[in-house]
Amino acid sequence: MSTPEAWPDLAGRIEDGIHLLPIRIYYEDTDFSGIVYHANYLRFAERSRSDFLRLAGVHHHELFEGDNPLAFAIHRMEMDFVRPARIDDVLEVRTRYVTAKGARLEVLQSIWRGDEELWRAKVMAAVIDQQGKPRRLPKSVVAKLSPLVRPLTVSS
Amino acid sequence: MSTPEAWPDLAGRIEDGIHLLPIRIYYEDTDFSGIVYHANYLRFAERSRSDFLRLAGVHHHELFEGDNPLAFAIHRMEMDFVRPARIDDVLEVRTRYVTAKGARLEVLQSIWRGDEELWRAKVMAAVIDQQGKPRRLPKSVVAKLSPLVRPLTVSS
Amino acid sequence: MSTPEAWPDLAGRIEDGIHLLPIRIYYEDTDFSGIVYHANYLRFAERSRSDFLRLAGVHHHELFEGDNPLAFAIHRMEMDFVRPARIDDVLEVRTRYVTAKGARLEVLQSIWRGDEELWRAKVMAAVIDQQGKPRRLPKSVVAKLSPLVRPLTVSS
Amino acid sequence: MSTPEAWPDLAGRIEDGIHLLPIRIYYEDTDFSGIVYHANYLRFAERSRSDFLRLAGVHHHELFEGDNPLAFAIHRMEMDFVRPARIDDVLEVRTRYVTAKGARLEVLQSIWRGDEELWRAKVMAAVIDQQGKPRRLPKSVVAKLSPLVRPLTVSS
Repeated sequence: MSTPEAWPDLAGRIEDGIHLLPIRIYYEDTDFSGIVYHANYLRFAERSRSDFLRLAGVHHHELFEGDNPLAFAIHRMEMDFVRPARIDDVLEVRTRYVTAKGARLEVLQSIWRGDEELWRAKVMAAVIDQQGKPRRLPKSVVAKLSPLVRPLTVSS
Repeated sequence: MSTPEAWPDLAGRIEDGIHLLPIRIYYEDTDFSGIVYHANYLRFAERSRSDFLRLAGVHHHELFEGDNPLAFAIHRMEMDFVRPARIDDVLEVRTRYVTAKGARLEVLQSIWRGDEELWRAKVMAAVIDQQGKPRRLPKSVVAKLSPLVRPLTVSS
Repeated sequence: MSTPEAWPDLAGRIEDGIHLLPIRIYYEDTDFSGIVYHANYLRFAERSRSDFLRLAGVHHHELFEGDNPLAFAIHRMEMDFVRPARIDDVLEVRTRYVTAKGARLEVLQSIWRGDEELWRAKVMAAVIDQQGKPRRLPKSVVAKLSPLVRPLTVSS
Repeated sequence: MSTPEAWPDLAGRIEDGIHLLPIRIYYEDTDFSGIVYHANYLRFAERSRSDFLRLAGVHHHELFEGDNPLAFAIHRMEMDFVRPARIDDVLEVRTRYVTAKGARLEVLQSIWRGDEELWRAKVMAAVIDQQGKPRRLPKSVVAKLSPLVRPLTVSS
């Protein structure tokens, strides 16, 4: 049966505040130039952010239900495309939440093939309501995320 | 300004009951084997079905609003992949509604490059409510679609 | 490190001739109507066909290299959409090769959520050369696939 | 027949160095949160860059053919997501090449709905060979692009 329990690694793993998610490159991810289509790295990165929240115990219904449902909205991304991925590659997305307070989320993400970095990004998101106004992260979400946040320090 | 009026052909055209929609093949549509990824023909076909309804004056809010919102749901597709499309090709999707009565919609679609047929499909859809139960097409939708339906006849 | 070895289940499993692949539903897979966009079931099915071949030891380079590279080309699909999938669902794709001889491949596929069938399809593919002509499956491919093929019988 | 001539606006227009491309939002572009999935703005932007080159007369085969085929490779993108797009919206992508010399291309892009800016990006690309090394833009490409480049000035 297709229960989550049958595939324990499906959502990846969080190790020391870093979420690791394996990604297989299929036909759908490539383009005729022979490499992965550039926008698809954002799909892979989003899967890892979603699975990070899943493993942290933060579920969509905590945001979407209630009188004025909230949503995560990305407002800025900066990304470097370092090396291309190809069909059949096994990649690993690494995701680290560096800020999660007030209405602000900051996430550092990178995609690796073995010890080669292929892509890295800085993602800035906010919690907004249905009118698009920034809202504070619900306390229950902060309580679950805080222990996993790894702020940037001078040396990192 | 990006008004629909500035791009009169954006939704294609209906000529004698057949909707014609041009499609340009971009990087995103191809895969590493050099041709269009097979699932993307379904995206092109859906664009044409949507634009057919748009030009017929049937809008999502006629289905989605109300106490028990309705939706179109595809329940079966049969399709033949005849020839592959490639980067930069200009294709044309042709869409013909052959049935639109009760809860049933049947659509014949094909995709052409000049006079070469690349793909064709038979699409069977239903109108369903939020509980997944079949519901009759709203009268306002039937009134708009009926003049454009081209039933199959013995000779067609 | 992102080695295939670190994620043993990444390509799913073949059990008694049936390939099982777990699929998580992410934002990218859904549309504004709240369910999985219909064309995406074809992406999930293709991942399972690719991983079936991967686990069988059939690699792209066995087809693509050589003087006249070969490719698998789908020429017909028939599919039923039975129930919709939604965000966060864990699905399982089941793939069974029923024919693999001459130039012909026939595959039966279905997608499940627990014990609910959501989608099923019959896929007919051929091996073709660069000129689009059907070619026999290379012997090395037949040797690897044959033990895994489960032909349809009267009772199945 | 599906000839480019039948759909004169299919590749958009270049007006005073700015490429304008209309984009209709279809089911495939949205996600269950009701808005356009963030990675899809990159697809829309790529369509406009491709059509800019098409209208400028720069074709893939000028890069891809020859002993050592060249390719455009994006190495960095910075983007702001300002407002969300929704189903049925008509958007307009605006693309301006601000640098095209040596191996470097810099492009400013934005996506509008009427007079509302929804998304904007700075795209840095390079011309690379099959070994991934930067190569100068072919002279024929520079000759076609130069008249359309609109460099940033102090006041722009």
